[in-house]
Amino acid sequence: MSNRSATSSTAAIIGGGVIGGGWAARFLLCGWRVVIFDPHPDAKKGVADVLENARRSLPALADFPMPPEGELVFAESIGQAVADATWIQESVPEDLGIKHNVITDIEAHASTDAVIGSSTSGFKPSELQEGMKTPGRILVAHPFNPVYLLPLVEIVGGDAVETDMRDRACNILRTIGMMPLVVRKEIDAHIADRFLEAVWREALWLVNDDIATTDEIDEAIRMGFGLRWAQMGLFETYRLAGGEEGMAHFIAQFGPCLSWPWTKLMDVPKLTDELVQKIASQSDAQSGAYSIRELEQIRDRNLVGILRSLKERDWGAGTVLRAFDTRLQTDTAADMPAEIAASTPMRMLDLTVLPAWIDYNGHMTEFRYVQVFSDTCDKMLVMIGMDPDYVASTGAWYTAETHTMQIDEIGANEMIFSSLQMLMSDSKRLHVFYRLHAADDDRLLATCEAMYLHVGKKSGRVCDAAPDMIEKAQRISDAHAGLPTPEAVGRYVGERKQE
Amino acid sequence: MSNRSATSSTAAIIGGGVIGGGWAARFLLCGWRVVIFDPHPDAKKGVADVLENARRSLPALADFPMPPEGELVFAESIGQAVADATWIQESVPEDLGIKHNVITDIEAHASTDAVIGSSTSGFKPSELQEGMKTPGRILVAHPFNPVYLLPLVEIVGGDAVETDMRDRACNILRTIGMMPLVVRKEIDAHIADRFLEAVWREALWLVNDDIATTDEIDEAIRMGFGLRWAQMGLFETYRLAGGEEGMAHFIAQFGPCLSWPWTKLMDVPKLTDELVQKIASQSDAQSGAYSIRELEQIRDRNLVGILRSLKERDWGAGTVLRAFDTRLQTDTAADMPAEIAASTPMRMLDLTVLPAWIDYNGHMTEFRYVQVFSDTCDKMLVMIGMDPDYVASTGAWYTAETHTMQIDEIGANEMIFSSLQMLMSDSKRLHVFYRLHAADDDRLLATCEAMYLHVGKKSGRVCDAAPDMIEKAQRISDAHAGLPTPEAVGRYVGERKQE
Repeated sequence: MSNRSATSSTAAIIGGGVIGGGWAARFLLCGWRVVIFDPHPDAKKGVADVLENARRSLPALADFPMPPEGELVFAESIGQAVADATWIQESVPEDLGIKHNVITDIEAHASTDAVIGSSTSGFKPSELQEGMKTPGRILVAHPFNPVYLLPLVEIVGGDAVETDMRDRACNILRTIGMMPLVVRKEIDAHIADRFLEAVWREALWLVNDDIATTDEIDEAIRMGFGLRWAQMGLFETYRLAGGEEGMAHFIAQFGPCLSWPWTKLMDVPKLTDELVQKIASQSDAQSGAYSIRELEQIRDRNLVGILRSLKERDWGAGTVLRAFDTRLQTDTAADMPAEIAASTPMRMLDLTVLPAWIDYNGHMTEFRYVQVFSDTCDKMLVMIGMDPDYVASTGAWYTAETHTMQIDEIGANEMIFSSLQMLMSDSKRLHVFYRLHAADDDRLLATCEAMYLHVGKKSGRVCDAAPDMIEKAQRISDAHAGLPTPEAVGRYVGERKQE
Repeated sequence: MSNRSATSSTAAIIGGGVIGGGWAARFLLCGWRVVIFDPHPDAKKGVADVLENARRSLPALADFPMPPEGELVFAESIGQAVADATWIQESVPEDLGIKHNVITDIEAHASTDAVIGSSTSGFKPSELQEGMKTPGRILVAHPFNPVYLLPLVEIVGGDAVETDMRDRACNILRTIGMMPLVVRKEIDAHIADRFLEAVWREALWLVNDDIATTDEIDEAIRMGFGLRWAQMGLFETYRLAGGEEGMAHFIAQFGPCLSWPWTKLMDVPKLTDELVQKIASQSDAQSGAYSIRELEQIRDRNLVGILRSLKERDWGAGTVLRAFDTRLQTDTAADMPAEIAASTPMRMLDLTVLPAWIDYNGHMTEFRYVQVFSDTCDKMLVMIGMDPDYVASTGAWYTAETHTMQIDEIGANEMIFSSLQMLMSDSKRLHVFYRLHAADDDRLLATCEAMYLHVGKKSGRVCDAAPDMIEKAQRISDAHAGLPTPEAVGRYVGERKQE
């Protein structure tokens, strides 16, 4: 597969918990050799679990093969772990004394040009560097769980770390797919954890005071602003909340509530003209390349993408979308028609081309044609009696093969309909021909010839369908016996049209 | 078309800003008649803009057609707006005096059984109800911008609103695709805005003190915890941060920092055993149906979906993934492999079968096979040079026909891979054979034979591709010239296997 030469870089991971394990997994999957030191008896098992999760997910983000996985070694001591390391990452408990001991031990054994990163959530780099021999290469590299998926890593060097060293650290982290955010001034809890801590404290109050349960709090986040924050942060979102009038309007609108008891956090900065101006101009620098309308449309496209991905996984806000689909769907139950017209194929589904079905050419994409044919088949199968009970107890019709011809294009929001012609049915087989038309002008968009086989629930093999089902299918094929055989039937891919 | 009878329900929207306009758009697209009152001269234009955004995005969340869009009317007065309304939504500025005047006016003209919802971010329902004639149907219905996409709406009735009325309100909101979260105890700013306000105040401090810019703050959110919160909230995320030891372990680990200056919010609840126990048992009730490992894998699948959707849109964390791809691509010279193996088809995509791809039989469903073949084709087309520039300026390859054979089944979360064999290429045609395999044991799951035609951007007709593209395709077909022709090639649907 990949011809890449194995990288010889080694990362030393001190502390193999959820965070240390996540670091190890990211380095390994990006081709680094990883040496872990963690004296905890369960460390190996814990790291193996994290690594298994990472193997399942991180490569799914890439559209190119990842490099060959690096070698994983467990060391007996910190000294042994750091000896060959280019990057050393400390992820031990949040206790300054422990961290000082670990860093002292690292300094005693590491190569002088190795970077020493700390996963600390809250300590300032100056606190970690205090009393150390080589403070200039000790910096905060604060990641977010799961470390192998989330790009953010806060880099805080403080005054002791030179720009060169900081840039080198950032570049190394970019090679493992991370997004280093340089925190220019050191501060307790850096940037992101200040927000997490504020929200955590507020949440503790809400639970403590029986206002909300943990579940209700999580829903309040993931059904609303959590979706916004996954793609724009706080300020860019609020820039839009102000509408065309923008950031200053938003601050004017919600400025007064700073003095209201909307949170337990009552020590607020004074909203001076100077501060408003600072925010507005930083926001312009950040987002001013786009108009408010453009940003709204970017935001909406992102939200549609995020919401649809949650819908595919039937999770969080995605479950709400599925429930809404069920409402839309209720009107379309399928019974066998009392009479089947003999002069024309059966009209089956009437649909709108959804915006989500469009490809980069602006037309309904290939597999969505197949999806419509597949849904048309499902409707026919329900008509002839394949309900959930039948599937659970007796068997189901499986698609053996299909031949699809794309004939014309159609754009978003156009109406389309599908039709079905039963070419042949017997006790084990259904041979069906579908057409997809534009509703406006009956224009033929695509055809599909399909062969289905009836497979028994228990045997897993092709077998006869239930007599009633065979009979219903036969009624359709009898009605369609006089229809001309479509030209595409029996055709193979690339066959020339007959003149 | 849909046989659905047009709903006769009317929603009155008082205040047509970003929030009111968003309510109007959601109701309209769900088939409601909407009457808006907003005396602002730009209100019509503002609502039209929001509606245009909503039309572009909300229907893309559904997999069934939305009902026909409702009628939009602008009223001259509150009285005229609310006369026929089933639901009345107040979205005027956050000023209790203004809100009282508006609600008084609504009460004077509305049908007695209409629900009166307020979009207030912070006022308690008892404050809105004070002095009103019909407090029992005045409730907070607090949505999140963009209202037409985000499902969350906080429903707060306080003591005055009976359960029946509250349930009726929730049911109405569900019919327009929202997720009503009942806030059981009224409190300033309800639930979600307490967090938003805490974060906002903390963010003002960081900007005020020159620790971070608005841009840096937004990156700190959307590259890290924002992605987590889009799919799990705070507590379910932290349940995982505690690893196998769970919630209590997490609290023990981060409990001490409640007394540290990690935020300006220093008034914290006491972390008593009772509070820890309450949180742990609420978290068990919320998430205990899944093991920690299961939750981790759910979280990771969600994150992969969200991250990939951002990657498609080249935004936020998605830009980091693209940059990482560029590294992978540079390392492998992967536009076009330097050498194409002549002994075996090209391995193209490595994928996990997503839970959403499963049909009622518990196996990967038909059109998802086609989707994978289609994605495999897209990757090949990129390899031979069909980038967005080429599509915009020159042309694209269109699928003319495909023949798909389903050979074996595969379940959710299994790894699969696709391969490509170029049967023939010339200046206008690509004849390709795909195979889909289970990764575990190389088992063949499906094959697809496809014919693509090159269509010119301007002419809309079949024409020659660019010389460089023809040459690249030829390199693949030359390399594959010695591979045996698969048995399925040239086969028509229902053709007997040759013995």
